Amino acid sequence: MEFRTKPLILLLSACSFAILTCIYLFPFSQSSIDGHYQTQQKDSFEAPKSNIWSELSVDEASDVYDFVFDELSHLNLTKHPKSNRDSFINFLETLRPNKTDAVPYLHDDATIPERWAKAAIAQVSDGDPYMVYYMVGPLPVSSETQVLPLEYIFNSGRNYIENPVQDFSSIMRFGLSLAENVSDITQDLLGAVVNTKDPFDPEGLLCWPRGSRIERGGMSMWFQFFRQGAGSGARTILPQGVYIKVDANSNDMDDWSPAQFYYNGVIYDSEAEFRDAWNKPDFRRAAINEDGSWTDTEDFDSKPAGRELPPPVSVQPYGPRYKLDKKQQFVSWFGFEFYITTAQATGLTLFDIRFKGKRVMYELGLQEAMAHYAGDDPMQGGLEFMDSFFGMGKNMFELVPGYDCPAYADFLDSRSYQAMHTYEQPNSICIFEYTADHLLSRHSAQFSITASRNTFLVVRSVSTVGNYDYTIEYIFYLDGTIEVKVRASGFIFGSFFARTNEDEYGHRIQEALSSSMHDHVLNFKADLDVAGPKNDMVRLAWEPLTKSYPWDRPEVEERNTMHIVEYAVDEEIGLDYPKNGGEFYVVLSSEEKNAWGERKGYRIAAGTGMGSPPHLTIVNSTTLGDSARWAEHDIWILQRKDKEPRSADPLNYFTPHDPLIDFTKIANHESLKQDDDSEYDGDLVVYFNLGAHHLPHSGDIPNTLMHTSASSVMFVPHNFADHDASRESVQGVRVQLKGKNSGGFAGEWSTNSDLRSRVARRGDEKKEHKVRYFGATYEEGVKLPLEAFEPDLRKFVSEEIAVTDLTFNGSAAGVWEKKIEG
Amino acid sequence: MEFRTKPLILLLSACSFAILTCIYLFPFSQSSIDGHYQTQQKDSFEAPKSNIWSELSVDEASDVYDFVFDELSHLNLTKHPKSNRDSFINFLETLRPNKTDAVPYLHDDATIPERWAKAAIAQVSDGDPYMVYYMVGPLPVSSETQVLPLEYIFNSGRNYIENPVQDFSSIMRFGLSLAENVSDITQDLLGAVVNTKDPFDPEGLLCWPRGSRIERGGMSMWFQFFRQGAGSGARTILPQGVYIKVDANSNDMDDWSPAQFYYNGVIYDSEAEFRDAWNKPDFRRAAINEDGSWTDTEDFDSKPAGRELPPPVSVQPYGPRYKLDKKQQFVSWFGFEFYITTAQATGLTLFDIRFKGKRVMYELGLQEAMAHYAGDDPMQGGLEFMDSFFGMGKNMFELVPGYDCPAYADFLDSRSYQAMHTYEQPNSICIFEYTADHLLSRHSAQFSITASRNTFLVVRSVSTVGNYDYTIEYIFYLDGTIEVKVRASGFIFGSFFARTNEDEYGHRIQEALSSSMHDHVLNFKADLDVAGPKNDMVRLAWEPLTKSYPWDRPEVEERNTMHIVEYAVDEEIGLDYPKNGGEFYVVLSSEEKNAWGERKGYRIAAGTGMGSPPHLTIVNSTTLGDSARWAEHDIWILQRKDKEPRSADPLNYFTPHDPLIDFTKIANHESLKQDDDSEYDGDLVVYFNLGAHHLPHSGDIPNTLMHTSASSVMFVPHNFADHDASRESVQGVRVQLKGKNSGGFAGEWSTNSDLRSRVARRGDEKKEHKVRYFGATYEEGVKLPLEAFEPDLRKFVSEEIAVTDLTFNGSAAGVWEKKIEG
Repeated sequence: MEFRTKPLILLLSACSFAILTCIYLFPFSQSSIDGHYQTQQKDSFEAPKSNIWSELSVDEASDVYDFVFDELSHLNLTKHPKSNRDSFINFLETLRPNKTDAVPYLHDDATIPERWAKAAIAQVSDGDPYMVYYMVGPLPVSSETQVLPLEYIFNSGRNYIENPVQDFSSIMRFGLSLAENVSDITQDLLGAVVNTKDPFDPEGLLCWPRGSRIERGGMSMWFQFFRQGAGSGARTILPQGVYIKVDANSNDMDDWSPAQFYYNGVIYDSEAEFRDAWNKPDFRRAAINEDGSWTDTEDFDSKPAGRELPPPVSVQPYGPRYKLDKKQQFVSWFGFEFYITTAQATGLTLFDIRFKGKRVMYELGLQEAMAHYAGDDPMQGGLEFMDSFFGMGKNMFELVPGYDCPAYADFLDSRSYQAMHTYEQPNSICIFEYTADHLLSRHSAQFSITASRNTFLVVRSVSTVGNYDYTIEYIFYLDGTIEVKVRASGFIFGSFFARTNEDEYGHRIQEALSSSMHDHVLNFKADLDVAGPKNDMVRLAWEPLTKSYPWDRPEVEERNTMHIVEYAVDEEIGLDYPKNGGEFYVVLSSEEKNAWGERKGYRIAAGTGMGSPPHLTIVNSTTLGDSARWAEHDIWILQRKDKEPRSADPLNYFTPHDPLIDFTKIANHESLKQDDDSEYDGDLVVYFNLGAHHLPHSGDIPNTLMHTSASSVMFVPHNFADHDASRESVQGVRVQLKGKNSGGFAGEWSTNSDLRSRVARRGDEKKEHKVRYFGATYEEGVKLPLEAFEPDLRKFVSEEIAVTDLTFNGSAAGVWEKKIEG
Repeated sequence: MEFRTKPLILLLSACSFAILTCIYLFPFSQSSIDGHYQTQQKDSFEAPKSNIWSELSVDEASDVYDFVFDELSHLNLTKHPKSNRDSFINFLETLRPNKTDAVPYLHDDATIPERWAKAAIAQVSDGDPYMVYYMVGPLPVSSETQVLPLEYIFNSGRNYIENPVQDFSSIMRFGLSLAENVSDITQDLLGAVVNTKDPFDPEGLLCWPRGSRIERGGMSMWFQFFRQGAGSGARTILPQGVYIKVDANSNDMDDWSPAQFYYNGVIYDSEAEFRDAWNKPDFRRAAINEDGSWTDTEDFDSKPAGRELPPPVSVQPYGPRYKLDKKQQFVSWFGFEFYITTAQATGLTLFDIRFKGKRVMYELGLQEAMAHYAGDDPMQGGLEFMDSFFGMGKNMFELVPGYDCPAYADFLDSRSYQAMHTYEQPNSICIFEYTADHLLSRHSAQFSITASRNTFLVVRSVSTVGNYDYTIEYIFYLDGTIEVKVRASGFIFGSFFARTNEDEYGHRIQEALSSSMHDHVLNFKADLDVAGPKNDMVRLAWEPLTKSYPWDRPEVEERNTMHIVEYAVDEEIGLDYPKNGGEFYVVLSSEEKNAWGERKGYRIAAGTGMGSPPHLTIVNSTTLGDSARWAEHDIWILQRKDKEPRSADPLNYFTPHDPLIDFTKIANHESLKQDDDSEYDGDLVVYFNLGAHHLPHSGDIPNTLMHTSASSVMFVPHNFADHDASRESVQGVRVQLKGKNSGGFAGEWSTNSDLRSRVARRGDEKKEHKVRYFGATYEEGVKLPLEAFEPDLRKFVSEEIAVTDLTFNGSAAGVWEKKIEG
């Protein structure tokens, strides 16, 4: 293994504000729970296969820690690192098996793939710190187990980066000491000073850095003041107007020195210059961004009419209809089957998703979560986060039952292993069914109504990375549709308001706070195997057409109309959502057709978020370099390869111009044609982005609201089955005029006298209906609030009955209300 | 009043398949309920003003019928029309007041506007039938009441069209007789014949027409066979492969004659030619599209695991939190206030929507619902519906409590008045609250979690126009957001499958059935009055930017980033959703700013339907002419005028090239600048479209599914208030480490030893939490299933308590589960 000597520069800012999570690269001196994973099984339901992607068990991790510690003893690993100048095992996790090894096990009863771990070693070489990836296996540890450089999944050819975080706590102390030097000025301009002895002092300021990587090498760093002490959760909306630039080119922090000051739109080339200006009578002051009740996330006091009553709530009186193997984290629900696993960087991933026995996806999960800001101040102007680095999995905190998920949900735990410790995240994943406020289908025919409920299954987690809370969920519908949805909440990252621009980068949202425009782009992998691994992708384009049809002539010589034009996607490409939604993106089985001769397919569609998910606005971002090129288009269609399992690596954050995984080398226009002479086997993979252009306004204070921050992509069956697959699973009701076979429940007829006599008409006859339920029936005498179910269900339990005392047409709701009240 | 003599030709096809509703232009010989409207009031809540837009009461309608009948006696009106060669009162409805008359009443305590009715008179002049609009008022009928031509709202300058429907039942009979002539052929090719004696015979065929307007004048008409008798609700997926063209240029049906036959892609110029071909051995037969269980809308028999259990359901144990004045159809809910009314053509409209005392919209409602098909067969190739003609209000049928809306919903009735009769549609509107499966906001801070519920208010109706069911709803959120959503279900209108094209216009979805591509475009009016009537519209564009920032130099000379560029919309324009969602469309108050100096605004955003709502694919549709130009862009920003209250009129359907309301004359590039010398008063109006490009596939059989057919636009507060307006209304919970003021519940800290001692860390101490609810508290001993509420709510009713026995962090869900099970 060789190390390059080119210096790599850190981007510290993210650490600053997501400080909880900055242990990733320097997890020394932390405590943890070394609790044991306990499985809870409600019943004897068992997954058909082992969850071969599951995170390491506590015992596995312990064994791997010990093995690696011994095996790499030449690196002088320590179990108790004091700084990142020590070498130590930074983290362990499962190295997921190659798909080519997994599929024979899953689908062909081959033996289970070897189990391997991935180890990240903080490793000092020639005095410089590096982070190096190894693979450890096979497991369990035996005489055959080895520690090998993990290289094959990184298209950089490297399995390491230089560890740029020299010593974060020293940098923090440096910031505080910088700030202390100008306490007289901050007392005057900001009304507060830093408390270097107690950064948690709620009266004290903080001074946090944002590092700027310099393309030619080296680093500069801007520090900004923030309120309200290190304990404040609202810090990111309490930026202060004084900024200090530091020349941080030296590797020795003792050589660092303040270079410039920035206040109210003006740059001062030294502290002295800043101080002089401040002492002059014409010094132009900005307002002060003070904390107050406006940063409170809740209002306990207001009592608008209705708030004294609880809102409607979802109940599940008879228990779940899904089956869950908690040990294997395997779920089965109305034909859907899948495995769940987690990783500290990326959170939840689902594997081997099948629907009614057919393969749909091999893998579905998050790759990276980026937030890219813009602004004209030294902090916001260069701010960008890649949250897999901070850990979208590691920051999946406990969910609040009854709020984050229904109280009746099942909750799963997750774990991660860092610096010899186990981190347990209890109840960090929830699984539940919910019935939508709208139906799945309905039709009022002439003499009947059919209505079918839309009950869906959700697998949800919430990753809170510092200020932002990302609720990420996978939703399954009875017809085979799979939805991936992200909602953002939490505190925005605002900028100090100075009148240097009017709404060019955001809106003024408090006395001295501006919102800061930013793009969220979250990248997901969907390894579709639509009815098997061999798939084609087509674009079905809605195109205007002017055409002469024989049946139109002579009256209409040419007709302006439209038609579908199918375009094959025969090369790796990034697609954007088309203008006017005018193309359907469909992944088709190359081999299987439905009963009508149509190729089985799944459509990839912008789902039920706010409009269509956007990609990154910025073209060729200076901050990002090549670290996140997947953000430049909406949907990527690529060859699937074992050596390209991911679109991103968390360490890309530190090596933007020379990332460990360069997406442009993955999405490199290879052919998707399944020619005989091609090595390509027809197994394509899709990467897609969720996110938002977020221009926060006053309504984002105190927290961003989730109903309008949602972003979604849906995978919708498209000729996948022979007819609607939900029909056999859905629950609903058919209400029909008694004695009629079909057709006027829903309305009147009036054509001619020949027909009239045959038709039941409102008011013409006593209304008698059949009410017939499909799906569940209910026991009589259920101890539930009457409203929990259709009241007639309680009364009529036979499959088909004449509802003679229920005049549905005209007063059903009234009758039922009366029953409820009585 | 003058009548033009240019003949107008009907488009009959729509009537054919939405036959329920074809009474619009010939409502003779029908029966009805002349029931009285009964108000039901739960409490004494009263609207602050009268609902001045409400539909006529039964008494009003009765008086207007009588008055018009007398007043227009010179027209020889009959109360019992036998055909449309009689003159009669076709329908009556409220003529809604001009906004300029309404606003002084609503906002300035002026006297109530005069009440007027609108009357459509089927009127025979020189032997030709016309439909003529009149206005009748003021009401109640008095010596001052007049009947006047209603002209000022039609920019055609006309208040009438020639009534093109000569006699629909005769046309139907004509079709059946045509079909009978070729019964030997249909028996052979389709396996059935028409039953002219009993069109409801489920073994019989039907033969339905689609008229083709000829631009030079005159009409041709294609008839197609359908199964399964006139009573079948599934008719539109049972088209048959034989088509007959009729020369219908003559006004005398006796002159009509079959002109061509079409079968399996071949045109035959006469019945004889068709018969000859059929008799030849090489005649190429198509498959037969037969009825079967595949058209059933429900499956009573399948029993997949879980279907025996009921799904989760929403309950509302303490009643609604909104207030409803059923008489005035006025709703108040957490700061929102609005009036509801209906019209037979357009269904629901909301008026005078306010949020926390501020005006948001004067009017919000449907204008037109179009479905435009394409295909290469004589039926689908020319098919297009404008469903306001059939009556989106008149076809708002009864809702199924517990399915269409929760059982606890409030239901309202609607009515319409046609040909001297009252049509009552009981329970056709529902109002309810629902709690989403996701939160409105949440944040895991260092020592606390805050979670706020997303409970919203829905006003819903379902219009079933023949085969399709449109669920249309207006949704209100606690932060002031208003959503308009349409979901389609019901039977698609398919085409007979012949192998003349491969998926060019649809997919094969049954043995002899193809889906038929179509665009749904539904036009809505949103008369925004954001904090008053004077509004500006801007586009806030997200644009890439390359810029040199002083604080970036010398390390970064130029940065690729982004910024917001504001573009004024200063002229009437149709906008499309921008590429990459890269523009925010915001309507701003011209006069009012929030506390931070930002103009109060509402953003118009593609909402939570499938991606962004599309507009019509077809460019300059031959079928549509000028009748629906609003379908050509997504959002229109226009001057609001009393004489332009609507974007469309139902009778546009019959006059596509010379419509009563020509949208291009409304959206005609007038200035939106509020200059002193402009007549424009700054009151703009927005029209927007919902809908879908619908390419049905096998999953649309038997019915289109609503979870993926949704289309939505949202109006989202944008700097409207000074902070999130939901904070004071929302209900939620704050869970906090006991004794800590802020920040580590959600995760661990680890920085340096100075800080460490201050920080609670998992495992370091016994976890004790405060649980504090905001919003509702609950009584002890509530008789509800434990799952209905957070179990701790039942136990802890004080506002703030230390939860010493609830170890939230680690096992809360477990504990709660145990309670539930016990």
